[in-house]
Amino acid sequence: MTTRADGRADDELRPIKITRNWLDHAAGSVLIEFGKTRVLCAASASEGVPRWRKGSGLGWVTAEYAMLPAATHERSSRESVKGKIGGRTHEISRLVGRSLRAVIDYKALGENTINIDCDVLQADGGTRTAAITGAYVALADAAASLGVSKALTGSVAAISVGIIDGAPRLDLPYEEDVRAETDMNIVMTGEGKFVEVQGTAEGAAFDRSELDGLLALGEKGCADLTKLQQAALAG
Amino acid sequence: MTTRADGRADDELRPIKITRNWLDHAAGSVLIEFGKTRVLCAASASEGVPRWRKGSGLGWVTAEYAMLPAATHERSSRESVKGKIGGRTHEISRLVGRSLRAVIDYKALGENTINIDCDVLQADGGTRTAAITGAYVALADAAASLGVSKALTGSVAAISVGIIDGAPRLDLPYEEDVRAETDMNIVMTGEGKFVEVQGTAEGAAFDRSELDGLLALGEKGCADLTKLQQAALAG
Amino acid sequence: MTTRADGRADDELRPIKITRNWLDHAAGSVLIEFGKTRVLCAASASEGVPRWRKGSGLGWVTAEYAMLPAATHERSSRESVKGKIGGRTHEISRLVGRSLRAVIDYKALGENTINIDCDVLQADGGTRTAAITGAYVALADAAASLGVSKALTGSVAAISVGIIDGAPRLDLPYEEDVRAETDMNIVMTGEGKFVEVQGTAEGAAFDRSELDGLLALGEKGCADLTKLQQAALAG
Amino acid sequence: MTTRADGRADDELRPIKITRNWLDHAAGSVLIEFGKTRVLCAASASEGVPRWRKGSGLGWVTAEYAMLPAATHERSSRESVKGKIGGRTHEISRLVGRSLRAVIDYKALGENTINIDCDVLQADGGTRTAAITGAYVALADAAASLGVSKALTGSVAAISVGIIDGAPRLDLPYEEDVRAETDMNIVMTGEGKFVEVQGTAEGAAFDRSELDGLLALGEKGCADLTKLQQAALAG
Amino acid sequence: MTTRADGRADDELRPIKITRNWLDHAAGSVLIEFGKTRVLCAASASEGVPRWRKGSGLGWVTAEYAMLPAATHERSSRESVKGKIGGRTHEISRLVGRSLRAVIDYKALGENTINIDCDVLQADGGTRTAAITGAYVALADAAASLGVSKALTGSVAAISVGIIDGAPRLDLPYEEDVRAETDMNIVMTGEGKFVEVQGTAEGAAFDRSELDGLLALGEKGCADLTKLQQAALAG
Amino acid sequence: MTTRADGRADDELRPIKITRNWLDHAAGSVLIEFGKTRVLCAASASEGVPRWRKGSGLGWVTAEYAMLPAATHERSSRESVKGKIGGRTHEISRLVGRSLRAVIDYKALGENTINIDCDVLQADGGTRTAAITGAYVALADAAASLGVSKALTGSVAAISVGIIDGAPRLDLPYEEDVRAETDMNIVMTGEGKFVEVQGTAEGAAFDRSELDGLLALGEKGCADLTKLQQAALAG
Repeated sequence: MTTRADGRADDELRPIKITRNWLDHAAGSVLIEFGKTRVLCAASASEGVPRWRKGSGLGWVTAEYAMLPAATHERSSRESVKGKIGGRTHEISRLVGRSLRAVIDYKALGENTINIDCDVLQADGGTRTAAITGAYVALADAAASLGVSKALTGSVAAISVGIIDGAPRLDLPYEEDVRAETDMNIVMTGEGKFVEVQGTAEGAAFDRSELDGLLALGEKGCADLTKLQQAALAG
Repeated sequence: MTTRADGRADDELRPIKITRNWLDHAAGSVLIEFGKTRVLCAASASEGVPRWRKGSGLGWVTAEYAMLPAATHERSSRESVKGKIGGRTHEISRLVGRSLRAVIDYKALGENTINIDCDVLQADGGTRTAAITGAYVALADAAASLGVSKALTGSVAAISVGIIDGAPRLDLPYEEDVRAETDMNIVMTGEGKFVEVQGTAEGAAFDRSELDGLLALGEKGCADLTKLQQAALAG
Repeated sequence: MTTRADGRADDELRPIKITRNWLDHAAGSVLIEFGKTRVLCAASASEGVPRWRKGSGLGWVTAEYAMLPAATHERSSRESVKGKIGGRTHEISRLVGRSLRAVIDYKALGENTINIDCDVLQADGGTRTAAITGAYVALADAAASLGVSKALTGSVAAISVGIIDGAPRLDLPYEEDVRAETDMNIVMTGEGKFVEVQGTAEGAAFDRSELDGLLALGEKGCADLTKLQQAALAG
Repeated sequence: MTTRADGRADDELRPIKITRNWLDHAAGSVLIEFGKTRVLCAASASEGVPRWRKGSGLGWVTAEYAMLPAATHERSSRESVKGKIGGRTHEISRLVGRSLRAVIDYKALGENTINIDCDVLQADGGTRTAAITGAYVALADAAASLGVSKALTGSVAAISVGIIDGAPRLDLPYEEDVRAETDMNIVMTGEGKFVEVQGTAEGAAFDRSELDGLLALGEKGCADLTKLQQAALAG
Repeated sequence: MTTRADGRADDELRPIKITRNWLDHAAGSVLIEFGKTRVLCAASASEGVPRWRKGSGLGWVTAEYAMLPAATHERSSRESVKGKIGGRTHEISRLVGRSLRAVIDYKALGENTINIDCDVLQADGGTRTAAITGAYVALADAAASLGVSKALTGSVAAISVGIIDGAPRLDLPYEEDVRAETDMNIVMTGEGKFVEVQGTAEGAAFDRSELDGLLALGEKGCADLTKLQQAALAG
Repeated sequence: MTTRADGRADDELRPIKITRNWLDHAAGSVLIEFGKTRVLCAASASEGVPRWRKGSGLGWVTAEYAMLPAATHERSSRESVKGKIGGRTHEISRLVGRSLRAVIDYKALGENTINIDCDVLQADGGTRTAAITGAYVALADAAASLGVSKALTGSVAAISVGIIDGAPRLDLPYEEDVRAETDMNIVMTGEGKFVEVQGTAEGAAFDRSELDGLLALGEKGCADLTKLQQAALAG
């Protein structure tokens, strides 16, 4: 049996905190914390849709993920200053957008666009999963304030899992993440179906039974997060 | 006599809140609030200096200012996505850097660089003055943690003043800022000397007596902020 | 039971063709065809490694994926002309690089870099899986020509699977890909272990048994491709 | 009492030369010289206004400032080659535009745009103040040639002032500019009102009496320039 | 008398191979080979013309030339990754476009645009001349498939000539190209008229009689290529 | 027989004016005028050479050509603002650099770089030929001031020729340039040898006798310019 530096059980989430309405202007906004990871999620609504979708009667949801320079252990340079967005940022922005679109009824949304901004204020592993989990709550608040709650067909949450020292663990902080042999991000609906499964062998390739172990752990973590989302929205 | 929407006297600051150590990784970090304006200021230290300064024995301090997309009333687009930094962002980043460098003893800093990041989480007027005022506190904490407090030769604070409906007012929120005939940002040291004076006629040009009135109001505001900075650092 | 437009069984690959040494200059080069999908994979060796790896005694392998404008049904615009790389391109380039690095012994490679270029000459679905599968063969040829075949600890192949009209299918061409409810790319070693698993619900979220069906199909497809790679390298 | 290298009194301008109609195509064009500083100012008119202003019945004036590579003592690199505009260029372009807009009656201009280009052919300090002073004359010529002279509600001129060796001086050439403890640019209307006041402590912070001294000097310099502008336009 | 490394006569082309319909999606596509130089030329048609040409009733033809990273002896870096197109690429793209437009009847084309993509898969000298020669065949196929063959008023072909060791030679491979004292690219119509003549003294300047020798050689080479184009199109 | 709008004979240059030392800082500088076309050419010297040439003992000469926005009949947009350099600018910068390098003895120059900047202040046709012709004079002055006049092995000049209404003409102004059926730029040494020949059929393709007529005219024009360069340098 392994022991985690923060004393958690292998299938236990870090302390999760969801603060709604953290901003005054956006239609919905949430500061979500997975331990020391802190992500500010804002959902802004605007009339109209991108050009390729005009006249369809359908809405659109898109997301942008970014990290503040001082969010990381070593300050990272600003993408606006470098003049281009890195591959990792692109990849996560696309993942967040796809995950949220999985629970959108475009017709019920009408020809409106919701922009989701997920800005990492502090990073300690799991920023993309915190972003998705918090963004859903911000999106629910935005949909309610716009009177289109029915445009949400369900909820969505995400968690990271990984194999460290041979054992599967849930919700990896940075120091576990860098040591993980395999790293997987799982996005699920509140009804327990999969939206995204992204597993990567960082060190050794993994076999089917390890994969099954990680999937089971991810299902458990997403179910826990779903309850925390419901509690926050009921609060 | 004029009445302000928020009931303040014309020479009164908005409620100011300075929260130190808001982040875990940066050498110094402050969340500063001027009313609804909220700026996260982080000071990160690194060894070495830019190429043009190598071997001089002198340190360097530089700053980057940016705004989150959802900080403003209408969501603004992300500069990293646009692939270039706008003129306003450039201008304010340079102002913040110059203001802080006015109280730096480069020799005492040694060949080290301090990067100041000022990220506006929410904007309601006066973001650049909040950024400078908060950045000084973050810088003081960073200098202390690095054991080079003597590299700071004094303190620096900044405030906006403007003429609205013919009367000079201190610390303009957004709704006053857009109506101001003249708008001025004043940066001063804790000893009451000027570091920067930037006045702009937005509507009609202003005469010397109006300018004198604005300068007096700015001196008052900066003195008030200096006391709040001292209290925060003593806390 | 479903019927595929091209008459294939649900677990059958398209005709696969691997042409080695398609180019004269690169250390290894392969034109790989998955049906109408045609990807030119080239492995170029150079001395030295990126700056962050210098002096480590370890080598590096990196990949770039791109698509010619006329490769797609509708001509797509050229990323060099747009002046920036899109998120999808970034994402796939990173995937190809990670997949190949899973079978590299950096120490055996020494401080050398191998650049893998995967250029899609014609696209009909599965371009990223063809790229990975062909790139491995180009890499093996390059390693042999450089006398460092032992730097390859195994082989790697990739295939797409998806659920179309409720049934899981292997190796989706474009017309199936756009109709897929769920789309998954699986990268495996020749020994049958997973390197990457990326599943996305395009329409409805998928449950665990559907996921298991897709994984089994992917294992079958990667095993078939491994044999084709071996045959090509033996040829 | 101080002595200036070029023998001028502390409150004396350098030789100013304003050559109108230096170009054949632009609606108005001026080559302005402040000593060795030489700026080519061109005002080009076009129908229509930027998108955000369409249908308002109001015109627009905007400015771009730039420096030729060989204008400076050491050749500077070309911003078009670097692919981005530096902060200083952005800042001055914005200042020139704001300064000229202070004397524009947008309604009288109608839905037309005037682009002001200020290209520094040779730099010896004071390029931004020469740009503003010359641009006004080019703008006046352009307005006259377009038959909208009434769209100009007044004139505008600009001058630099600074404290060198403890004494305030007017119109700093490069060798004084680099030595200045405090540096201020003042933009005023022909009627003696302020449009912009930008003062920066380059070395030590400055006190109120020093600020007053600089303002007085700036008022004198702008008044002198106003007369020279009038003479040029009468010529 | 000189001897060429590949045994050709000084006025002899390398083996030329023109493969039509190499791609499935583009309206016309050709893989053209000049010895080891291999260029994929695709002609894609789309409705409409660039904005500046709308409503004119006239069509447009434009071209983009690029080189795959592994095409050259030493891998070259990807222009999309660098974020900008180099001068050489720009120059050749413009040359290819101009050359093809010389045989276009815009009116007969109607308000349609044909995009020509010339991607160099392998480079061994003469890539721009192979691109033009192959692009014409792709364009002819595209025009035929669109039913506007009459929009082509003639054919166009191109060849390189140069002076090596004092003697004029036709169709230079890379190893001759780098040694050439003078290098010239000649573009001609099928009727034997000149479309472009671009000669450059790489080493010593050349006199009129040398120029005349090169022109004669170019006329011979273009006439030979014209016959090969006709044969390919008749095939 | 044709008549030109400005009354010139078909083989006559426009009035040419060469003003040396137009700038104070550059090692050599020339304002050259071909009629209304006005180009400022500056040659700046710096120690060292580009990385790929270090340690070779050889110098380098490079050139950048650009156009001010107000130089053209219709204001053109600034390439620094667009964030990229256009193909035409790239092409001409390369042509100017190649032309000057044709008369450089790199060994005599030593490991120094000369940057040539050609900025078009006003454009009326022939800007690239004026740039080359003026740049040579600036380069000669720079070489003399650096004490390396022997690094120039000869002189270089350039002129445009074209066929208008069926007749060959020398030195085309804008209004002839846009009407030309064929347009050619010729760069020659002072000794009457060719450095560059670039001819383009704008309308109809041209035959060999027309080409011969243009070449003869170009030889005459370059010889005339060589004399004017010599006179300017002797002055």
